[in-house]
Amino acid sequence: MKQVIYLDNAATTRTRPEVVEAMVPYFSEHYGNPSSVYEFSTPSKQVIAKTREIIGKSLGARPNEIYFTAGGTESDNWAIKAVAEAYETKGRHIITSKIEHHAVLHTCEYLEKKRGFEVTYLDVDENGTVKIEELKKAIRPDTILISIMFANNEIGTIEPVKEIGQIAKEHGILFHTDAVQAYGHVPINVDEYHIDMLSASGHKLNGPKGIGFLYIRTGLKLRSFVHGGAQERKRRGGTENVPGIAGLGKAVEMAMDTMEKRSHKERELRDYLIERVMAEVSFVRLNGHKSNRLSNNANFAFQFVEGESLLIMLDMNGICGSSGSACTSGSLDPSHVLLAIGLPHEIAHGSLRLTLNEENTREEMDYVVEKIKEIVDRLRAMSPLYEDFMKKSQA
Amino acid sequence: MKQVIYLDNAATTRTRPEVVEAMVPYFSEHYGNPSSVYEFSTPSKQVIAKTREIIGKSLGARPNEIYFTAGGTESDNWAIKAVAEAYETKGRHIITSKIEHHAVLHTCEYLEKKRGFEVTYLDVDENGTVKIEELKKAIRPDTILISIMFANNEIGTIEPVKEIGQIAKEHGILFHTDAVQAYGHVPINVDEYHIDMLSASGHKLNGPKGIGFLYIRTGLKLRSFVHGGAQERKRRGGTENVPGIAGLGKAVEMAMDTMEKRSHKERELRDYLIERVMAEVSFVRLNGHKSNRLSNNANFAFQFVEGESLLIMLDMNGICGSSGSACTSGSLDPSHVLLAIGLPHEIAHGSLRLTLNEENTREEMDYVVEKIKEIVDRLRAMSPLYEDFMKKSQA
Repeated sequence: MKQVIYLDNAATTRTRPEVVEAMVPYFSEHYGNPSSVYEFSTPSKQVIAKTREIIGKSLGARPNEIYFTAGGTESDNWAIKAVAEAYETKGRHIITSKIEHHAVLHTCEYLEKKRGFEVTYLDVDENGTVKIEELKKAIRPDTILISIMFANNEIGTIEPVKEIGQIAKEHGILFHTDAVQAYGHVPINVDEYHIDMLSASGHKLNGPKGIGFLYIRTGLKLRSFVHGGAQERKRRGGTENVPGIAGLGKAVEMAMDTMEKRSHKERELRDYLIERVMAEVSFVRLNGHKSNRLSNNANFAFQFVEGESLLIMLDMNGICGSSGSACTSGSLDPSHVLLAIGLPHEIAHGSLRLTLNEENTREEMDYVVEKIKEIVDRLRAMSPLYEDFMKKSQA
Repeated sequence: MKQVIYLDNAATTRTRPEVVEAMVPYFSEHYGNPSSVYEFSTPSKQVIAKTREIIGKSLGARPNEIYFTAGGTESDNWAIKAVAEAYETKGRHIITSKIEHHAVLHTCEYLEKKRGFEVTYLDVDENGTVKIEELKKAIRPDTILISIMFANNEIGTIEPVKEIGQIAKEHGILFHTDAVQAYGHVPINVDEYHIDMLSASGHKLNGPKGIGFLYIRTGLKLRSFVHGGAQERKRRGGTENVPGIAGLGKAVEMAMDTMEKRSHKERELRDYLIERVMAEVSFVRLNGHKSNRLSNNANFAFQFVEGESLLIMLDMNGICGSSGSACTSGSLDPSHVLLAIGLPHEIAHGSLRLTLNEENTREEMDYVVEKIKEIVDRLRAMSPLYEDFMKKSQA
């Protein structure tokens, strides 16, 4: 396989070899079912308890507030649907934002269409930041849940989660945050931020795919989403994914230990990339908040460029990027996030998300910038829109 | 770690080293998100397609009828809840049996309590076989779903799935089967058996934990259970568990290839174990159908014995068994399956499930029989009930 420059770490990350190493013993050696009573299952039970502790600690939470799921999407579904079910006698209004991940948006749409809920989708500003004043105005007596992502998966903007949590708390409304993209990358404390539920996923922090968790604050009377056996204190049926949990534990441990240094390195490289692209390519916009964004995220909109073609040509040069979230890459619609920050359709179509990791190098960034310049020039040379524009501006 | 005789393969199985080997490349080497457009993701896409083909073939189904989930429990939840939602305007009656796994029973109970459904829980006979006449009688004009397991997880009885499928078809009712315990162990053909939906799990057939699938017959208008991205043809959101899917494919391939030989070997050993226990221990009953049962399942009820104590003492002798399903082993209630086949509470409490695999040996069975005899004798010697009984029978 040819060497690639992988710049799509928001889509998924490489599972660290140390993580795989932590998983392997639980496949063929310590494979006992953690629900079983015999001693042979003790290692399975222990690694689950240990991971719960690692994650609890990482969030300033208690280990028994952590519930393992198959990933961020299941966690989002669980949090929102279970709150809807538990509190529907109190009210049927939910507040979220227009730039949430589809795991949140489609779950909310389901509740609207099938369960008679009303959902307010908050606007965001041109940087993708939720407007706090709009949030305050949207609160009604029957609002039971605010679900706002910690950081956006496409444009990297970090939301004012602490303020949102404070407002939710003051109004006695539950607060869920989809932290799939942020957890392991920025410090989060559930008590300080007044977070009642938090979704996260293993494969976004160099852990395995197929494992995630939902933090549920003690005292919340949430039912199961997946009904079945008595696992996860009767709240999530199904034999625990023991190797996945072992890997998640290791990944979280390493993510927490390296966070500061890693973010610093990513930010430096990312800023170098952004500076060069902004300086050397014309008609380009940086999407997302300039400073208050995930350290590894760069998202550009190139005018007069078709994003899909740009991606394909980058791929031909060994560069892995994306136009938006991976989960919607099959779709031809422009990103709902880019539309929400006010980009016109044709510009939203010309977007490129590059999400770095600490292993990337400055040489790689130089190569990527050169290729972007080359490809954008070439695509614009073929664009009738660009030709028109240039004629008009020269006229 | 000391050597154990693992006889709890119905709870979970050892992941085959070949399966782990099939998974490993997808953690740190081919880790691309299958939804991404670049070439780096091609191996991820390919292994998913390949596994879908392997599974489709194993069931006489089409690859695009296979949907990956986090396991059997999610599959059961999805099948039942999605049918309930899609067909509730047609009717709100579901038929299942009293001996289903909790993934089915608790899902049905949820639909009863929270969604206004009526559920008929069919009785079974003393062998654990669903009574076909009762099934016919239970069908109503508003019945939308029959959900009967392929084989029982505790007592191993194989249900008359073909007849049930035929009846469902004749009445235009959808048929779901929880085949978690049977898939990979007995031949299944979805067309021949008129199965509309089938749940299965990787870790019950020497595959990894945390992965399973739901077969959904083409044409069924079932919605998502987990809402989110466009994965699994928009029916199951969440980044695919690529290594898990790779492992599942390998496990299914091997399970299908070895099924006949393996079952034969397991049956021979299992029958030897059963014959010796029945012949050499007094006041014992074999639970489940004598012949029409999973090849690796033995389930005994020992009168005047507390099952929990029996398990602990077997464990002290390096033998891993269980009293019922692993998913309920935290509970002190007697097994709902054993109660349903007519066992009184005190006898249901004295049950022991031993589920073999092809790697077990006759020497191990001999050792297990000797230990069972020793322990049962010892426990009975401490039992006031046994003392009373013996006094009365001698009087």
